[in-house]
Order: sequence, then C-alpha cells, then structure tokens
Amino acid sequence: MNAYIISIGDELLIGQTVNTNASFIAEKLSDINITVTKITTVADDEEAILNEFKTALDTSDLVIVTGGLGPTHDDITRTCVVKYFDTKLVESKEVLDDIETMFAKRNRELTGINKAQALVPEIATPIRNKIGTAPGIWIEKDNKIFIVMPGVPAEMKSMMKDFVIPNLEEKTKEAGKVIKKSILQTTGIAESSLFEKLGDLDELLGEAKLAFLPTILGVKLRITVEDTDEENAKNRLVEIEQKIRSKAGRYIFGKGDETLEEVVGRLLKEREMKIATAESCTGGLIAHTLTNISGSSAYFERGIVSYSNAAKVEILRVNEDTIAEHGAVSPEVAMQMAEGVKSTSGADIGIGVTGIMGPTGATTDKPVGLVYIGYCDEKVCTVRKYIFGNDRLLNKMRTMQAALDLVRRQLLGISSDD
Amino acid sequence: MNAYIISIGDELLIGQTVNTNASFIAEKLSDINITVTKITTVADDEEAILNEFKTALDTSDLVIVTGGLGPTHDDITRTCVVKYFDTKLVESKEVLDDIETMFAKRNRELTGINKAQALVPEIATPIRNKIGTAPGIWIEKDNKIFIVMPGVPAEMKSMMKDFVIPNLEEKTKEAGKVIKKSILQTTGIAESSLFEKLGDLDELLGEAKLAFLPTILGVKLRITVEDTDEENAKNRLVEIEQKIRSKAGRYIFGKGDETLEEVVGRLLKEREMKIATAESCTGGLIAHTLTNISGSSAYFERGIVSYSNAAKVEILRVNEDTIAEHGAVSPEVAMQMAEGVKSTSGADIGIGVTGIMGPTGATTDKPVGLVYIGYCDEKVCTVRKYIFGNDRLLNKMRTMQAALDLVRRQLLGISSDD
Repeated sequence: MNAYIISIGDELLIGQTVNTNASFIAEKLSDINITVTKITTVADDEEAILNEFKTALDTSDLVIVTGGLGPTHDDITRTCVVKYFDTKLVESKEVLDDIETMFAKRNRELTGINKAQALVPEIATPIRNKIGTAPGIWIEKDNKIFIVMPGVPAEMKSMMKDFVIPNLEEKTKEAGKVIKKSILQTTGIAESSLFEKLGDLDELLGEAKLAFLPTILGVKLRITVEDTDEENAKNRLVEIEQKIRSKAGRYIFGKGDETLEEVVGRLLKEREMKIATAESCTGGLIAHTLTNISGSSAYFERGIVSYSNAAKVEILRVNEDTIAEHGAVSPEVAMQMAEGVKSTSGADIGIGVTGIMGPTGATTDKPVGLVYIGYCDEKVCTVRKYIFGNDRLLNKMRTMQAALDLVRRQLLGISSDD
Repeated sequence: MNAYIISIGDELLIGQTVNTNASFIAEKLSDINITVTKITTVADDEEAILNEFKTALDTSDLVIVTGGLGPTHDDITRTCVVKYFDTKLVESKEVLDDIETMFAKRNRELTGINKAQALVPEIATPIRNKIGTAPGIWIEKDNKIFIVMPGVPAEMKSMMKDFVIPNLEEKTKEAGKVIKKSILQTTGIAESSLFEKLGDLDELLGEAKLAFLPTILGVKLRITVEDTDEENAKNRLVEIEQKIRSKAGRYIFGKGDETLEEVVGRLLKEREMKIATAESCTGGLIAHTLTNISGSSAYFERGIVSYSNAAKVEILRVNEDTIAEHGAVSPEVAMQMAEGVKSTSGADIGIGVTGIMGPTGATTDKPVGLVYIGYCDEKVCTVRKYIFGNDRLLNKMRTMQAALDLVRRQLLGISSDD
C-alpha cells in the first residue's frame, strides 16, 4: 500500500509552522509497513486543494490529508472533499452528541458554528474527535482510502492512534499478511558500533527486516516481521528481540516511544528512591527533563545548577582546593558534586555534571565537548568521562542523556564497559 | 515571484526526520515577499525527482531543492539536475580550492570521492559551502531560477544567508521594487489583545502590510513596506515601527530572530548584574534557557530547582510556616524563593517560580496552570500571578518566558500594567 500525505495551510507555506504532522503520520505509516511516496503542502485555496486531491488519488492507494477542518472561513477542506467526491453534507448524530457533551462539560454555549461541525460528507465515516470539535473523515472509494484529519497535532495524533492506524492495520490484515513491528531504543552507542555488535544480520534476522534509525539522543532499532500467521509473527519478533538484547542489551533502554526520563522515573519509583542533581554545564537541563514527567515530584528531590564556583562550594560542599588544583571541569569535582548533592539533600542518588559545552571555554588540555558525570548512591560512587561535539545545545542534550543513562545502568546493575 | 520548494530524502518519507528545512526556506522567502505556493517531499528516486522538477518548473518562477547532494550512492540529486537540464558536469576550480583548504585545515587526506564534489553542472553557478564540501547549484534558464542546496540544515542555512537571499533580493530589485521588512517580537500578550492595542490598522500602516505570527512564546509582528525608493522604504518602516512601539512597546522584547534569553543576557551584561533562579514548577527550564547562551556564566550565578519543600526551606530559607499556611504554590512562597536565592547567592537579581503544571496536582482553589513568579533586586520585590493552560510542557515553557520577560521589564523600568 502506497500513501500520499497532504498538509493544507498557509501558515506552513510562510514557514510560520514546522510541518511536524507529516513526519508523525509518515512514521506511524512506516511502522505498519505502508510506504509514503510523497508529502506535499498546499495553500488554503480551493483550486490547489482539488488539484492535489486528484494527483494524490491518481497515484496512491491511501491519501491522508490534515488541516483546514476548523470552523472559520479559511477552513475549506471539508467543502473541497464534498466537491471532489460529488457528495453532500449530512449531520452525524454521534458527532453532534460528542460536541454537545464537550460544550456541556466546559459550561460553554453551543453556537451555530459549533453545531455545523457535526456535518460530514454523506459518503464518509466520521472519525470522532476526543480533544476538539471537528470530526475527521474516512472515505473508501474505488479501492482507495481517503482520510482527512484536523491540523491541530493533538487532535490528529489521537485520531491516528485510536482509529486510523488500527483500521489501516485491519486493512493490511485482510490481504492475508500479518506484519509485526517492534522498536528498541538504544543510547550511548554509535550506529556503526551497534551495527558491529549485532554481527551477521542475515543470521540474526532470517526473513525479518531491521532498520537503524539514528536520532540526536540514540539509535532506534526497528524490527519488522511479515508472516501469514499472527502467532508465528509474534514469536519470531520475540526471538529476534531476545537475540538483539543478548548482543547489545546494555544499550537498550526502552521500547516503542518510551523516553529515557520515563524509564528512569519508573525505576526510581519502583525502588522508592529519590534523586538529586548537581549540574554545571547542562545548566538545569537534566532537572528540566526529569520533571517533564508528570508525577516526578515522587522521586525528584532537588536540583542545583551550580554555575559559579561559589555555588559548588557553598551548596554542594565541593572542596575549594580541589577546584583550584584540578579545575571546575574535572573528574574530582564531578564526583564531589554528586556526593554533595546526595548528602545535603538526603536523596538516595546524586548526580554531578561538569564540562565545556562550547563554543568558547576550551583550554589546551580540555577541549570543547569534554564532560565528566559523577554518580553516587548508598553503595557506589563513580565518575565517567565523555567527549561530545562542538555544538552547545547538542552537547547539553547528549550530556543529559548520558547522565540519565548512567542512572539507568546503575539502577539495573549493568556493569560499565570499555 | 512564486516559489516551489522540493525536499529530497527517504528519511523524510519514513518520518525519521522532521522537515525543518522547508519551513526555514519558506520563512526566509516570505520575508522577502516571495510567495511559496507548494512544498513537496520526494524519495531518493530518479523518476520521482525528475517528475517533480518538471512540475515545479512548469508552475513556478523559482524552485528551491534541498537534499541528495552528498557523496554516497543514494545522493542522486546532482545527476538528476544534469539529466533534467541536459548539461554535463565540469570541475569548478573555486569549489575544489574550498574543499582542498577545508581538508588541509582538518588534516585529512583528500580522496577521489571528495574531489568529485567539485563537479558542478556546466550551466550552473556553484554556491560555495562554508561548512561542508558539497557546493550548491544556481541555474537561471527561461526566466526561471532553479536552486539546489545540501540537506544538512547548517549548510543550507549558511548558503541561504550568504548567497541565495541576497541574490534573490537583487532580482526583486531589478524589477524596480524595494521591499523592506522588519520583525518585532512580542511576548506576554495574546494576538487578539495586541490587535486591539494597535487600533486602526489602515491609519497605522498606510500602504504597508502587517502580519501577526503567533508562536507558543509570543506573537511576532512582521511589517512589510514596498516602495520604489530605498530611502523612502526605510523611513516608512522606521515610522511604522515607532507607531507600533508607542502603542504596544512594553510587549516588544526584540527584533528579527532575537530570543528573549539573548535580550535578557545582554541587559544583564550591560549592567554588570548577576541573576540567580529558584524554580519549582519549571524544574530547571529557566536556568537551562538562560545557559543556552554562550557566555552566560558572566551573568548567571546559580539556579536552585527546589522541587521538595525541604529544598525550599534548607537552601532558599523559605519559611516553613508560610508553606504550611499558604501552600507551596502561593505568592508568599514565590516571593520568599526569589528573596532567598538572591540573598544566599549574592546575585543582584533573584527569581522564584512556583505553580501547578498539570495534568495532576490541582486543588479546588488552585487550578492546573496557576503560576506565581517572584522577582527581587536591590530595590524592588514583586510577585505576579499567571494562569496558563493544561499542557505540562507548554505550561513550563510559558512560565519560563513570563519569568524572563518579568526580568526584562524590571531591568528596563517598564511599569506593570493592568
């Protein structure tokens, strides 16, 4: 099945909005083995939209459109759908119910404009909207599937998850094929090294496929198994996952969309442990990332952004002589920061981070990208050295990820390697 | 002049990479009054690329292509250009010089693959690459302009800034028109309120145009003046800017691409002042944002992420009774956090932030989105109340921006309104 994604909206064509919708949809389609052949963006303009619908349906089995479903005058996508498919609008009872319930809950009065959102093209199945008022549109005609969703990312994502992807998977199944995918998230290892660790891929995979998807914070491994039997597909997937884990398990922190901060948060919660952070070069990014998780107050005790040496000495009890002797960017200071924030906060784990993020600040023996991360818990104190790149923001992000991964490995008892 | 943007690359079609290049290019074109009518993404596939070139050149005056210029086998854009324009590759002496200089500097040996990057289509003007090795391509034919740049964002951006935009502006000028643009960045005011404050737009603008561009952190105002005379255009732009400042100046923090953290950093540096932050709900995001600026150690003293009440009491000397009486999310605690971090750090300015970011944590009288921000300097201590939305991450970002803007206004002596 080939897919064509159309994004509608003037705001995309003037660069005001980055088209994250298209990449989200493309990723989810790719996950269920649907090949996206083209992504386009067109203006809120009837002629442009109708032309694009035609090109898309002429060349693809599946067309997914987002944007232009709102209630204002420049939202013309629904009108274009009615025109293109030569159908008419009819009121959907279930959509109207959804809208009425939503307005009642929010104590807002329902206007004509809002009610009009319950009108859907007669030949379409409405896709219900759990977050906003505009329903999505699902049309099947001449062996093609044509889907329209709102451009608001949260609404589109919710429809994709609850309706579009399950229904598209069902369609693929009808064709007698079972496709199972699994994503393993790794961090702390380069794509090329990971590739080497996995060894002979033919032996590992058999008929299955493996994609290496590098991101700034790690490499995702996507395994795809195709089979005629559901049970078989599942078993083969589990088997390959186990083989990969046996070769590179220490680098795998999670599955699917899981983030490292979610995984670390869960581990801390399970163990009823609290963490405290002492950050110099990351400037608060580790604390910020940990506290992006709702409920993190259960395990995040405090964070100290000890940018100045005074802060390191006064709050974290780092020894002034150590700073004078080894410099603020040194394994000794990272360790004392971790120890200090642990003992002064009473947390179970302390993290200390110091480094040179660039572009300035390097010395002859300390290059931009040099980072030391200290970790202390009740039993262990350890420090690691890293050398990242030249970009300040990327260095902050990579240091944050390395620090969280160090916590994960320590909590799981994964020994340090090389 | 109408433009068509083509992004080439399989990684975009599987959703692995978000297409930030297209929105960057669209924004910069829009800034010089070029209308982007379509943005498309196609695979690293010769037939798809050649078809796209044809459609684009058939329908537009300007075509901008990114991606597929690298040295590996799946980078086929240059070959497609040669085929499409029925030309041949010739070595560019200046590009070869650039590549040789770059390799010499990095002490790396030049291979045949690298040398081959100096080959450009005979009918093209090469666009020199200051960051990488692949040159861009600029072709003018049949009154159309066809531009190709690498997909690496930093390389594309550098070419846009130094070559593409200045040359396109030159083209527009030849047509006898001078277009001047200016962007004013506002924060702390909703689009609709800003609109009201500006009053009669016809009176304000005359023949000029004004676009309201809302982002998560504020609304950008883009003024566009068209004239036949350079001096006239500049004067009219300045005049309109002044009028806007007289009506909504307090909300304008910067011009062009400036960020609020850059502006606040500059103000602190000029005044030789230091700032310290005490964050609860933002979890370190304010410190992280301030320290994203290179050289911020000159004015950022320390940050305390006092997630627990113990941290607030022990480090910031917040009164336990105040917490017991008013709760951790209260104007009193925000104020004491600001005072505490200022006095304990010895910084000139202290910021204290406490709130409920959601989705959980609300009480009957304290909804999700409630935030108090305290500010203290040598002369003034003040606290502000805000109510943001329901999304945890957006709430963190909006609180961060509000805190930085409070600092900016206090430093500039802008009185509080309403």
